[in-house]
Amino acid sequence: MDSQNYVSHGGMDGVKDKEAKEGGGGTSFFLLRVMALLLTLVAAIVLGVDKQNKVIPIKIVDSLPPLNIPVVAKWHYLSAFVFFVVSNAIACTYAALSLLLSFNRKKSLVLVTLILDLLMVPLLFSGIGATGAIGLMGYEGNSRLRWGKACNVFGKFCDQVAVAIVLSLLGSIAFILLVMLAALRLHNKSK
Amino acid sequence: MDSQNYVSHGGMDGVKDKEAKEGGGGTSFFLLRVMALLLTLVAAIVLGVDKQNKVIPIKIVDSLPPLNIPVVAKWHYLSAFVFFVVSNAIACTYAALSLLLSFNRKKSLVLVTLILDLLMVPLLFSGIGATGAIGLMGYEGNSRLRWGKACNVFGKFCDQVAVAIVLSLLGSIAFILLVMLAALRLHNKSK
Repeated sequence: MDSQNYVSHGGMDGVKDKEAKEGGGGTSFFLLRVMALLLTLVAAIVLGVDKQNKVIPIKIVDSLPPLNIPVVAKWHYLSAFVFFVVSNAIACTYAALSLLLSFNRKKSLVLVTLILDLLMVPLLFSGIGATGAIGLMGYEGNSRLRWGKACNVFGKFCDQVAVAIVLSLLGSIAFILLVMLAALRLHNKSK
Repeated sequence: MDSQNYVSHGGMDGVKDKEAKEGGGGTSFFLLRVMALLLTLVAAIVLGVDKQNKVIPIKIVDSLPPLNIPVVAKWHYLSAFVFFVVSNAIACTYAALSLLLSFNRKKSLVLVTLILDLLMVPLLFSGIGATGAIGLMGYEGNSRLRWGKACNVFGKFCDQVAVAIVLSLLGSIAFILLVMLAALRLHNKSK
């Protein structure tokens, strides 16, 4: 589906007819790319602003009232969370750039964007895996390693991590669908 | 590149000529698929047999000799490692099945294997991310969360985890290259 054909058709009906024939869909690509952009952007922001202050009463001597110790959880205390924010920021930036590129419908760009969309999948999923594993450890702890739970104290912080993971997962699925749609379009054209 | 053409060419030279023309490569696909199979298989085995016994001397009372406490690290103590082994086992099984399918060169199978190869990428990378994050935590610990290092005690165990991660990463790259090659082949055919 190249630019010349787009221009010659002129109206939206012509474009839709062509899309339907070729099995791909410019509108589907555009919407998926916008979804990927927004979801990874919001995922990076949700985890990138994650912070929780808490005051924990600790009793040192029985006869005295407990000491109130202020504790804080910040997203950049854990390298897995930093990786998550960076990977989502990269994917989001790429999605924005590829949206601009998508207006230039050169044939070679279809393959280039397919490959770049594909590379966003391992980037995002390694971040999701890392953050998911550390988040789960925060919820459950591990008695054998003596790694205690953290989410019983920082519940809001952990919930925000979970929301960021779900958003990033949806963004990654948008990238997977973009690769699938581009492959389907190439497959239908090659018939 | 369908089976009829393969048969009509007969010899390997004909196959290679056809591969060169179409920009894909039956041999490259086959080798990458075998690599993906072997690497994910070995990665699953390396982590799936990971176990280390250790005796740690702990001094309870100064005047008495230290108590020797036996401790053990097993791969299935951590859910991230279980996920890694399962995801590599799934990818390895799929690679074996897809190798069998690759002898049947129906046109529709090219798209189906491209999509299934693509789905192995998030599966493997989420396992790599999860295992990498927990492994890194084992090496470095986190003072704020009071999660102590484990790899200073279980060095061999952690090294084996690192080897499994590298193997799985190489296997995942093989799957990414398979998707890229299949897309390139479809792109060249659609010209």
